[in-house]
Amino acid sequence: MTATLTISSKNYSSWSLRGWLLCRLAGLEFEEDRTPASDPATRAELLLLSPSFLVPALEHDGIKVWDTLAIAEYLNETFPQAGLLPGDRKARAHCRSICGEMHSGFVNLRSSLPMNLKARHPDFKVWAGAQGDIDRVKTIWRDCLQTYGGPYLFGTRLTVADAMYAPVCARFHTYDVKLDAACADYAARILALPQMVEWTEAAGNEPEEVQELEVEF
Amino acid sequence: MTATLTISSKNYSSWSLRGWLLCRLAGLEFEEDRTPASDPATRAELLLLSPSFLVPALEHDGIKVWDTLAIAEYLNETFPQAGLLPGDRKARAHCRSICGEMHSGFVNLRSSLPMNLKARHPDFKVWAGAQGDIDRVKTIWRDCLQTYGGPYLFGTRLTVADAMYAPVCARFHTYDVKLDAACADYAARILALPQMVEWTEAAGNEPEEVQELEVEF
Repeated sequence: MTATLTISSKNYSSWSLRGWLLCRLAGLEFEEDRTPASDPATRAELLLLSPSFLVPALEHDGIKVWDTLAIAEYLNETFPQAGLLPGDRKARAHCRSICGEMHSGFVNLRSSLPMNLKARHPDFKVWAGAQGDIDRVKTIWRDCLQTYGGPYLFGTRLTVADAMYAPVCARFHTYDVKLDAACADYAARILALPQMVEWTEAAGNEPEEVQELEVEF
Repeated sequence: MTATLTISSKNYSSWSLRGWLLCRLAGLEFEEDRTPASDPATRAELLLLSPSFLVPALEHDGIKVWDTLAIAEYLNETFPQAGLLPGDRKARAHCRSICGEMHSGFVNLRSSLPMNLKARHPDFKVWAGAQGDIDRVKTIWRDCLQTYGGPYLFGTRLTVADAMYAPVCARFHTYDVKLDAACADYAARILALPQMVEWTEAAGNEPEEVQELEVEF
């Protein structure tokens, strides 16, 4: 039984990163299928015109599932031992709520601080419209870390929420966003995960054919 | 055990409609809590600046859950007999995929054809950027209706998918979007649901304090 995850750019596609992390956290063995950056759908996704579109998409066991949250729920059902969602129903509802916020919201954060793992922008001037999103992310993180005791958002296991917010950790790093100690520690912990290190290295080695998108943005 | 659903405008807030429909489909008894339109968060939500934000939000059984998809998953877990998600795992993955698309995508459709249940715009000129979204919705509907045999997206029971796409049915009606027979029949069927009739009537009786938002948009 082979599984295939379709993704686009490792450097630019935050949704691809989320889907890939979820598959790794679930313990799924899968092959990666990279859509070419010249594909119109990929371009639209990378340019944030269509934040979810049909990437990432997972084929597994004769089932095709696309959209990051749908993939998360599918993996949670299929690999319950991975604990992708918290076992407690109140915590699970909380986890799904903040995952939903990331999935449909934070538009200003996503458009003004796009993921770009290779880039560093020290003292980046954050547009006021994005500051509210950044503050909301920090509130969410602090609330979770306090409520569940860390080191991850819902305690000692990585959950869907950590995968959903992982690209935000990368953006805060790229754009030098100032964080309090609790949030800075959390973001550093996520970026140091072996899966994140592996993904980021692969992003660094990605062909530059998609770099042109940056200037168009 | 009382449940409370926080919503905003019945005329303008498509996310409120989705959350409310989900609670009704689940068979939940709940009270409605209407956030005032002057509230900044409500205004942001109505102006589509923050598509999900914290409305709708459900409090039930000591648990607070916000974001429409999180509410859907919570209700599906808590009221499994309602069958909010298809019983077959392949159909369930499909259902979650198209719900996820609606949740995070269709930005052009949502911004250029905002929900306004009271309005009628015959021969509305659809911006080219929104046409791709409309075509994608039609493809999704036709695929579901053919695969599962109708009358609803996943067969004979209403699911989360019907609730997610219900505001789109209303938009197609408001903006006079041309549909093929299969899609037109489906949209008409959804708009004729007793729950939709009840909601639409309440929208018609809504105080006009939120109407000002229309001109600002």
